Amino acid sequence: MDQQVARLRMLAPDGLVVYDIQDEPGRSGQARPFPFLPTIDPEVYAHDALAELAIPKIVYRCVGAQPREVFSSWIDSIRAADRRLGVFVGAPHGRSPLPGLPLAEAYALARAAPNLVLGGIAIAERHVAKEDEHERILAKQDAGCRFFITQSVYDAASTKSLLSDYALSLHACGRSPAPVVLTFSPCGSVRTLEFMKWLGISFPRWLENELRHSADTLERSIDLCESVFADVQDYAREKHLPIGINVESVSIRKAEVEASVELFQRLSSRLAP
Amino acid sequence: MDQQVARLRMLAPDGLVVYDIQDEPGRSGQARPFPFLPTIDPEVYAHDALAELAIPKIVYRCVGAQPREVFSSWIDSIRAADRRLGVFVGAPHGRSPLPGLPLAEAYALARAAPNLVLGGIAIAERHVAKEDEHERILAKQDAGCRFFITQSVYDAASTKSLLSDYALSLHACGRSPAPVVLTFSPCGSVRTLEFMKWLGISFPRWLENELRHSADTLERSIDLCESVFADVQDYAREKHLPIGINVESVSIRKAEVEASVELFQRLSSRLAP
Repeated sequence: MDQQVARLRMLAPDGLVVYDIQDEPGRSGQARPFPFLPTIDPEVYAHDALAELAIPKIVYRCVGAQPREVFSSWIDSIRAADRRLGVFVGAPHGRSPLPGLPLAEAYALARAAPNLVLGGIAIAERHVAKEDEHERILAKQDAGCRFFITQSVYDAASTKSLLSDYALSLHACGRSPAPVVLTFSPCGSVRTLEFMKWLGISFPRWLENELRHSADTLERSIDLCESVFADVQDYAREKHLPIGINVESVSIRKAEVEASVELFQRLSSRLAP
Repeated sequence: MDQQVARLRMLAPDGLVVYDIQDEPGRSGQARPFPFLPTIDPEVYAHDALAELAIPKIVYRCVGAQPREVFSSWIDSIRAADRRLGVFVGAPHGRSPLPGLPLAEAYALARAAPNLVLGGIAIAERHVAKEDEHERILAKQDAGCRFFITQSVYDAASTKSLLSDYALSLHACGRSPAPVVLTFSPCGSVRTLEFMKWLGISFPRWLENELRHSADTLERSIDLCESVFADVQDYAREKHLPIGINVESVSIRKAEVEASVELFQRLSSRLAP
């Protein structure tokens, strides 16, 4: 924990995203490439374990897995608290067997806490299949979302396609864009690659080949992440869309965690004006 | 014709590709966006109409539409001729109702004429769906193909994916690459875009949006072609794959034909070492 605090102090990000990791047995028919390790509650981790870290925290709240009352009383506790709180809310994968609160109702409940800065999830891979993710983003903005976070970006074209349709829709209805925070994750092995694919992250075939056949998959992956980001960033600038970055390691492997530190530094230096 | 000869003299390409245009009523279920205009035989056009043009010509020969005897006697006439002749051979779209010579038999017949420099077609869009286009390329090399020509490239990722799998296969079996000639075509209108899609050319959604919503579609298209080429060229260099360019206008519209001249000049200046 001390090491984690020291690392985050050194990196000094604008904010820290704390996920709530789900087992998601309902996802795909494939075995989970990495075993699921139950973790502590993300809010406890963010606000208690990392209490001494004075960086704004954005806590992920998964609503699909809990009844309405749990979410509702959580909103009450937030409203009672005397601070702004960043939260992004999503539901687990569609085929989840868990009964839970529909996303739209969670957003409606969240509006009762004006000190809550609500965010949503935007998934470019879903846009490739359905071509309506920009409409979902706009609907989530209507429902109160003020920023979006993507899953890990390895496919520049699908991310640009989502941003393109989003920019066109904003223009058509004269609205302002919400910031889209692009997530990037190092990939140090074929197993990690398989895990990311299991999570629903898409890789252009040539890029997957690069990772599979590189002598140093980890280093190659952060080079590739950087060039994917540069490509998407150029495009977003052209379209006057505000974007940000979020760097995470999808595994607990030391080398990948350390590579995520390097990747954060490389990408944030590109964000500087 | 004089204008065409003057234009080609000015451009001074290494070679001229002369297509044999098919109506292809068997292609897709959609109406053909541009009407089919019967043209003169590509060989007559290349070697008679453009006889005064001392540029090597590569004539497209479509084998799906003609019986074995026609192709076979054509090969005899080539063998008898006292010159090297570039030809690339393909079959029309799979659902064509025309009976004709299978591609493999055409290649076998072509081997009887050693003065014939045989080329084949490589389609990245087919690779996205089936992931075996690199194997088809290698099989065509075995059958005597010494170069490949793509259809128009607007999708850098799928082209890089094909080149990636091709490079990996070559490496695995210790073989040398055949040059891949990448085709590029300006797109000056939504109608031309629809025609290219009808021809089977794929456009990433963001790029299609750029073309559809640009104030100057034609100029935007050649800028985009140039950046697609730069991307693919960087990748091909990294993989030590020899590539070339072929620029064509898919329509007979004056503005698009003129834009193809500009595009040729821009791309060929990037090819210079």
